[in-house]
Amino acid sequence: MVTINDNYLKLKAGYLFPEISRRVNAFAAANPDAKIIRLGIGDVTEPLPAACREAMTAAVAEMGDRATFKGYGPEQGYAWLREAIASHDFQARGCEISPAEIFISDGSKCDTGNILDIFGHDNTIAVTDPVYPVYVDTNVMAGHTGPANDQGEFAGLVYLPITAANNFVAPLPTGKVDLIYLCFPNNPTGATATKEHLQSWVDYARSYGSIILFDAAYEGFITDPSLPRSIYEIPGARECAIEFRSFSKTAGFTGTRCAFTVVPKTLTGKAVDGSEINLWDLWNRRQSTKFNGVSYIIQRGAAAVYSEAGQTQVKALINFYMENAQIIRTQLHAAGLQVYGGINAPYVWVKTPQGLSSWDFFDKLLHTCHVVGTPGSGFGAAGEGYFRISAFNSRENVNEAMARITEKFSV
Amino acid sequence: MVTINDNYLKLKAGYLFPEISRRVNAFAAANPDAKIIRLGIGDVTEPLPAACREAMTAAVAEMGDRATFKGYGPEQGYAWLREAIASHDFQARGCEISPAEIFISDGSKCDTGNILDIFGHDNTIAVTDPVYPVYVDTNVMAGHTGPANDQGEFAGLVYLPITAANNFVAPLPTGKVDLIYLCFPNNPTGATATKEHLQSWVDYARSYGSIILFDAAYEGFITDPSLPRSIYEIPGARECAIEFRSFSKTAGFTGTRCAFTVVPKTLTGKAVDGSEINLWDLWNRRQSTKFNGVSYIIQRGAAAVYSEAGQTQVKALINFYMENAQIIRTQLHAAGLQVYGGINAPYVWVKTPQGLSSWDFFDKLLHTCHVVGTPGSGFGAAGEGYFRISAFNSRENVNEAMARITEKFSV
Repeated sequence: MVTINDNYLKLKAGYLFPEISRRVNAFAAANPDAKIIRLGIGDVTEPLPAACREAMTAAVAEMGDRATFKGYGPEQGYAWLREAIASHDFQARGCEISPAEIFISDGSKCDTGNILDIFGHDNTIAVTDPVYPVYVDTNVMAGHTGPANDQGEFAGLVYLPITAANNFVAPLPTGKVDLIYLCFPNNPTGATATKEHLQSWVDYARSYGSIILFDAAYEGFITDPSLPRSIYEIPGARECAIEFRSFSKTAGFTGTRCAFTVVPKTLTGKAVDGSEINLWDLWNRRQSTKFNGVSYIIQRGAAAVYSEAGQTQVKALINFYMENAQIIRTQLHAAGLQVYGGINAPYVWVKTPQGLSSWDFFDKLLHTCHVVGTPGSGFGAAGEGYFRISAFNSRENVNEAMARITEKFSV
Repeated sequence: MVTINDNYLKLKAGYLFPEISRRVNAFAAANPDAKIIRLGIGDVTEPLPAACREAMTAAVAEMGDRATFKGYGPEQGYAWLREAIASHDFQARGCEISPAEIFISDGSKCDTGNILDIFGHDNTIAVTDPVYPVYVDTNVMAGHTGPANDQGEFAGLVYLPITAANNFVAPLPTGKVDLIYLCFPNNPTGATATKEHLQSWVDYARSYGSIILFDAAYEGFITDPSLPRSIYEIPGARECAIEFRSFSKTAGFTGTRCAFTVVPKTLTGKAVDGSEINLWDLWNRRQSTKFNGVSYIIQRGAAAVYSEAGQTQVKALINFYMENAQIIRTQLHAAGLQVYGGINAPYVWVKTPQGLSSWDFFDKLLHTCHVVGTPGSGFGAAGEGYFRISAFNSRENVNEAMARITEKFSV
């Protein structure tokens, strides 16, 4: 009989967000009149920028004429999109990233999982705790861990706790790790990293020959000009870092699907015979063989983000969500809750009141306020006692949710 | 230092289609005036059906209004698309497939590679020879093979030769294999399978507890009503088969990107402890964790394929390509070449003339006729001495290419 990948059986019962959906759907079914406000999954709510819509409508029309029809595109993405990204997102900020080093994809979630395909199974993997669950689960699926303990920690992974005590910024590991996941602005805590902090990671990675998997999906929300938006702003990062970026949160593409991954041609890893192998070659081969590129229509929409109108519209979108974050911070603080993040990130990280566990607070918030957030423990053991509130929603819903929470949880 | 996935180093120099691109680009650069006609990669050329374009334009507009804006959709695809597929493509043909068993994706290439994630590394894998290279390469990358020999055959894979002698239909393996890739209508040979032939495979798979990975990307091109379009037309297939389908070739979606995979809830595989594990659960978990669904806009386009107008337009598109195939068959036959396929499939499989190797014929055709085809040896050792001509092109280009080939290669 065919055998299965037994590593899947080590996974915890539900991936965090489906589990949230399950509880919310059950509550909604039992309480059909409840007006539920969802500040749980970090999903955008505001219309797609007009520039993107106009570009996509034009692209759909091109598909109707055989002279402009597009079949298979380059697996790595169209040159015009890769060039716009390299120019605007990197070269304009002094980062030496070429269009050829940018791989367009349908999502950073996919890429952060798929990137493991090109690495060996014997690497030591470090993640922060709490952390975006996909980093952990994809390593479990790939067989890079043992089983989980009662706190949901998987044997073999190196967990770097990020708490209020260290300002939610991970300390360097004491020993060697080979692959390190970092996410700044951070999901879920909303924390940011200074250039000095990232420099310490780059120096660490270069001293050990490690690779940093840098998730910059929320870079668009950085308002402090002194903070780095890309790890490639740090000298030496081209020798040790892969960066993941997305149009999901910055341009409202969560349902439209476009992202990209930066793999500098200067990165290498070690083969069994000790030779150094170019990682760009491996990722290029992976994408050419197991991926067929992003829809032409969608890539045209993403490219419009870099037009003058697109830039103005995207900035307005981000400002809107950041005003939401400011309202959430202010209101929860006024209600006596301890809040973190939400200044250079669309997430506010809240200490649960009254000693409640993260899931108990989730259930209480859902049942008493009809507001959905994300339990901190869903992001890792060190997230217990915390709760994530997302700034992605309408102003009306944010105000209403804050009013409900303030009323029920004022301490 | 971080280690790499050494299995990638076993891969042959270039994935077939990038290698073709490289040779064609080099020729085009050296001969800028040559009017090259591409009958190589199976890429569609005709406009996207109007019904699909109208649906996508409307979906783009919906993204502009917060009341109809769509963020993250279900990782498995929207219910309305899964329901339309289940109803039209399966239930209408007597196949007992439910919407929940259909997983929408951005491409069959991705899915045929990604499906390996849920299986163990100790399975015996069978492929036909010649075969779509992705099946082989993704197994090499996953570490399921040893190195390749001079013919490009990887140690550990079971190759089932399909040649003129067996009518390009693979014989059952003599021993046990656990995973079997079958593709009908076949890429590259254009051959088809009768119900009786597929029944023999289903019976084989059920007797061994094997899983058939059935690639039906070209089912839309079947004209003979006696031929099965889905493996689920065969009794017992729900117990042993996963089917891959795509809108790429039938509805012209190669650049638009939408496909789906059918995983019946009745399939199981064996865990290390001997227990039987549901494969649907594993694939659902895989997709939930490593994929974020297909763009809402694109799914709306795919759903329009099942509208009345969409069905009419898609049928016209397929008829157009099949008339091309008929012209190719007739012309090449008249020129004295031995041709196969092209009746229920958009590919014509040609015996190379004058004892030329597949790549020599490729180069000769490119240099003397400025026509691009696909060398049969690129699909496997048993494809040597054959050549694939695709029916995907304009009528004008097909006629012109045939005229050039007839002139240069009449035997």
